Amino acid sequence: MKKGLFISLEGGEGSGKTSQIVAISEYLKKHNIDHIITREPGGISISEQIREVILNKQNTTMDGRTEALLYAAARRQHLVEKVIPALNEGKVVISDRFVDASLAYQGYARGLGIDEVMEINEFAIDGYMPDLTLFLDIDPQAGLDRIAKNSQREVNRLDLEALDFHNKVREGYNILLKNYPERIKLIDASKNFDEVFEEIKKVLDKYIRVN
Amino acid sequence: MKKGLFISLEGGEGSGKTSQIVAISEYLKKHNIDHIITREPGGISISEQIREVILNKQNTTMDGRTEALLYAAARRQHLVEKVIPALNEGKVVISDRFVDASLAYQGYARGLGIDEVMEINEFAIDGYMPDLTLFLDIDPQAGLDRIAKNSQREVNRLDLEALDFHNKVREGYNILLKNYPERIKLIDASKNFDEVFEEIKKVLDKYIRVN
Repeated sequence: MKKGLFISLEGGEGSGKTSQIVAISEYLKKHNIDHIITREPGGISISEQIREVILNKQNTTMDGRTEALLYAAARRQHLVEKVIPALNEGKVVISDRFVDASLAYQGYARGLGIDEVMEINEFAIDGYMPDLTLFLDIDPQAGLDRIAKNSQREVNRLDLEALDFHNKVREGYNILLKNYPERIKLIDASKNFDEVFEEIKKVLDKYIRVN
Repeated sequence: MKKGLFISLEGGEGSGKTSQIVAISEYLKKHNIDHIITREPGGISISEQIREVILNKQNTTMDGRTEALLYAAARRQHLVEKVIPALNEGKVVISDRFVDASLAYQGYARGLGIDEVMEINEFAIDGYMPDLTLFLDIDPQAGLDRIAKNSQREVNRLDLEALDFHNKVREGYNILLKNYPERIKLIDASKNFDEVFEEIKKVLDKYIRVN
């Protein structure tokens, strides 16, 4: 029996997703709202072992469908061992990325098909879709510029090649936004940090009773 | 472009599946029919790594859906790296178990659902269903007796508990036989070795031109 609230954050490189999650956690803490922050594989041993197979640099021949199935398997175990128990205890679960990342990256940008990747993920999540997904949208070039500025490094040729891919990922997320208008909320992540957080709070406050 | 012929053999414990595959291979060899015999993970490194995660005895908390996704992932990579290349070279591929094993074991006997497990396997095989599947059917008790007789060991309590499970697996295979009457051929594996092989040959000769 699920009593908690399941929230995922999605967004491309430089969208500020990770910093916003820290701010959300502080906000919830201030209002004494019991919550956990997680990100797959999230310290779950079986999911970590699966992730090792995915990231093993020797595995150069890995097929895109194999990879998508492995991501779904790691997701399943992380969900069962970490997310569901927290929800059952009535906690708010904030996940740094979830199923939409697979749909946008593997399904759309890598061309496996959003519907196809959704089918294996439906099997993996077995009904545990997030109650709310915040999509932090930013133009990939602007996201890249933000990273370059923060890391003091120059944008190189690989970054520029990657730009095409990240534009496709963004297109993928925008398709999902249309497919799931009730669940996914668009957050304009091109604004400055405080403005973005204000936007997030406005949405959050509709889902969480803060005192 | 697929030119070869893809054959899988399925069957429970003591059905004689593995010995019959050796006999099939000798028969094909005698008739100069180029073929390979395989069994997942079949020496494919990525599939072996995945299988290690499945079989790791430390992983006692592994969820049934995680396991089914991992089997599908290992299947995909084995298919891409071993089965498809052989089929493209025009070879006959004999696989000791394939998708039906997941449907009968995980889908039916373990209760995940045949249709659900089929969905993730459809994603994994992407159209590469076997052209022919030989289901070596034997009453699980008779199969168990055959193993006990050959291995000189007594049937123990665990074997008897397992009997219920193997009866369910057999039921699962019989449902698949009804779902795929064109592809799956029933072989009565309760007969003696030579009789079973004669039955197999009769079916095989319709698919393979032997001289």
